[in-house]
Amino acid sequence: MKPIQVGLLGIGTVGSGVFNVLARNQDEIRRRAGRGIQISMVADLDAARARSIVGENARVVGDAREVIANPDIDVVVELIGGYGIAKALVLEAIAAGKHVVTANKALLAVHGTEIFQAAAERGVIVAFEAAVAGGIPIIKALREGLTANQIQWVAGIINGTTNFILSEMRDKGLDFDVVLKEAQRLGYAEADPTFDIEGVDAAHKATIMSAIAFGIPVQFDKAYVEGITKLAAADIRYAEQLGYRIKLLGITKRTDKGVELRVHPSLVPAKRLIANVEGAMNAVLVQGDAVGATLYYGKGAGAEPTASAVIADLVDIARLGGADPTHRVPPLAFQSHTLGEAGRDLPVLPMAEVVTSYYLRIRVADEAGVLAKITGILADAGISIDAVLQREADEVGGEGSTQTDLIILTHDTREGDMDAALAQIQPLPTVLAPITRIRKEELN
Amino acid sequence: MKPIQVGLLGIGTVGSGVFNVLARNQDEIRRRAGRGIQISMVADLDAARARSIVGENARVVGDAREVIANPDIDVVVELIGGYGIAKALVLEAIAAGKHVVTANKALLAVHGTEIFQAAAERGVIVAFEAAVAGGIPIIKALREGLTANQIQWVAGIINGTTNFILSEMRDKGLDFDVVLKEAQRLGYAEADPTFDIEGVDAAHKATIMSAIAFGIPVQFDKAYVEGITKLAAADIRYAEQLGYRIKLLGITKRTDKGVELRVHPSLVPAKRLIANVEGAMNAVLVQGDAVGATLYYGKGAGAEPTASAVIADLVDIARLGGADPTHRVPPLAFQSHTLGEAGRDLPVLPMAEVVTSYYLRIRVADEAGVLAKITGILADAGISIDAVLQREADEVGGEGSTQTDLIILTHDTREGDMDAALAQIQPLPTVLAPITRIRKEELN
Repeated sequence: MKPIQVGLLGIGTVGSGVFNVLARNQDEIRRRAGRGIQISMVADLDAARARSIVGENARVVGDAREVIANPDIDVVVELIGGYGIAKALVLEAIAAGKHVVTANKALLAVHGTEIFQAAAERGVIVAFEAAVAGGIPIIKALREGLTANQIQWVAGIINGTTNFILSEMRDKGLDFDVVLKEAQRLGYAEADPTFDIEGVDAAHKATIMSAIAFGIPVQFDKAYVEGITKLAAADIRYAEQLGYRIKLLGITKRTDKGVELRVHPSLVPAKRLIANVEGAMNAVLVQGDAVGATLYYGKGAGAEPTASAVIADLVDIARLGGADPTHRVPPLAFQSHTLGEAGRDLPVLPMAEVVTSYYLRIRVADEAGVLAKITGILADAGISIDAVLQREADEVGGEGSTQTDLIILTHDTREGDMDAALAQIQPLPTVLAPITRIRKEELN
Repeated sequence: MKPIQVGLLGIGTVGSGVFNVLARNQDEIRRRAGRGIQISMVADLDAARARSIVGENARVVGDAREVIANPDIDVVVELIGGYGIAKALVLEAIAAGKHVVTANKALLAVHGTEIFQAAAERGVIVAFEAAVAGGIPIIKALREGLTANQIQWVAGIINGTTNFILSEMRDKGLDFDVVLKEAQRLGYAEADPTFDIEGVDAAHKATIMSAIAFGIPVQFDKAYVEGITKLAAADIRYAEQLGYRIKLLGITKRTDKGVELRVHPSLVPAKRLIANVEGAMNAVLVQGDAVGATLYYGKGAGAEPTASAVIADLVDIARLGGADPTHRVPPLAFQSHTLGEAGRDLPVLPMAEVVTSYYLRIRVADEAGVLAKITGILADAGISIDAVLQREADEVGGEGSTQTDLIILTHDTREGDMDAALAQIQPLPTVLAPITRIRKEELN
């Protein structure tokens, strides 16, 4: 059978990874796919660099639309990123009857509904394993491996940059700013790290997983997004003393009222496997009603791990793409005509409706009655306390200090109730600094 | 679309799990699969018990062949187990044009080639996600998620009974026999635990993974199989002191000379995620040349975790089974006509050709020159020593003891060379007991 003809849009880090892995493993991939997979066209603004990568093996053009217009191309791989030109090109490729493979989590989290709709109407596949957790086949696991389950929640370390930073902060006892600079120097963080450290990248991925897990449309605009920039070394240390690690988790959870969709730093029991995922690695923990907890771990970024996912999608297309469109796996796991139904049933909840437990660090004056006052306010708000850790003032502020840290762990609480309680506690004269509030996930 | 009609052969623990999960999650499964999945017939020798499970929802018969002969049945789910009648029924179901789902690892590890061949000729699917690691979608990950990779090795904790026993031995410092009895009392081990504790069950699963990972035929008869019955609490303790845990691993590895396929207790660095998989849980670590290491963790047994995998296969069949057979995923990942090719290229290696590192525990007389003699023999055999731990005689044998344990960790060694060296060391008059030899896997 003739090799499947692939056109790459963009040949940066991931694109050259795709090219190299396909070249290196072509025999084995052909034996799996049943036909060869050939990159025959590459579009990149930097045509000279593109040529230096692909040599004589593919035609290099400057205009992506030349690839899309070529009737010999079966699949367009979009590796440009972002919401702008990438969106237009993906929609044009679909309109031209091409299957599309993309690693573009931002695009799918924001415009996925429109894109999948267009693909369904045109009868083409849009595949995106590389969009979430790099080389870990988590999309396939959620969409195909766990189809028997009512999925209850998904919690993932799905941003390698922030996990590297948090691991370093813990290992070396350093503050965020210091470690960020080191991460940038080592190439684990970009020059403009905003999307990573503010949690936006993780929220894109969590949004995609929420749709697949629960059969709801992608709704990035409803996601709660909080990054790691305000974490202090002290919080990581206190968490450790209490038996927890702090991880940036992307969480999506089904409740009776709707779906939680949130990214924020989280205390996780140190004994959980996911708490021990270190450095730039990713891991996703999925709770299903039949299977229980399953975990998927691996590299979430990098040229070849991401290429591994892109090529797996190409093999899927080579194997299944020729079948009539009713005999394929739906992109978001659920048959597309049923997504609307569920969107009505399961709204994404506002953060005030989320129920979780909390770690609070409150810098207080070291005087009698402070603890009683604060715990009284929590009790009045119906917030139940799990543990309190009060540090010696000397230990916190140095000898003769009149300030101390009060660490409170709560039981499950509605976020809105916590907001209300903290609004009362923060202005107390004995509370000397902005309160640190970190959510705590037991993941059991 | 009409629901897909399923006939169950055998409704024991897993069968009733399949029935219950399908009933509980039927709406969600239908939304994913695009059509309902209905168990309309059940064959079981204990018809009364079968009726008590399925009620009026399915026809219960005593003869499995009635299910196979029924033209309304689309898929036969074989949950009988073993090589005997199960093999005949699976082949008859295939011959009758039914798709088959099975959890029967023994059957596939031994007779898989014949069964997949028959299925290919008849144009039906044989699916078996439940055969390896229960609810963890590891077959799908290897067969579809990692298709870009030249897979280098797979190492898995794929038998929950033995992992439970090893976890208990370590936690409580108890010997094998004591913990086995406890495991039997708790239901983690069967009354006849031979297949689990001798490594046979793990070897069935490793055999299936070797075929999928490397594109070779299933060759259970070539697997090296060693169980955990000879492990002593002392070895677990010494391993711990050296920074290792002991796990029963199913390993399959590609080398220049061929494929290693082996099950045995293994020292694993304690810091590896897989070393921290406790109790009856399963985990499989896969090393691919593009993706690096990925790990898959979850419950490897039990009614509903296994049902999760069986139903995922049914959903795959509902989604893809109607396509013409050229547009499906090949059962062993590689297109079947290419399996023979590879079988010639990559023989399964005899154990003497396996290269790994070792932990040796040698009970010796506590006298001068013993260590020199033993390390001299190892050096002459070209075996390089990584570390030596010599215990105080008093500590090992009680006060005044004249015996001690010599613990030696080696670098990578050919198993045949180690056999030859141990054949010289064992008869030494200063070696007072059978030498314990446990393989060590760094898994990096």
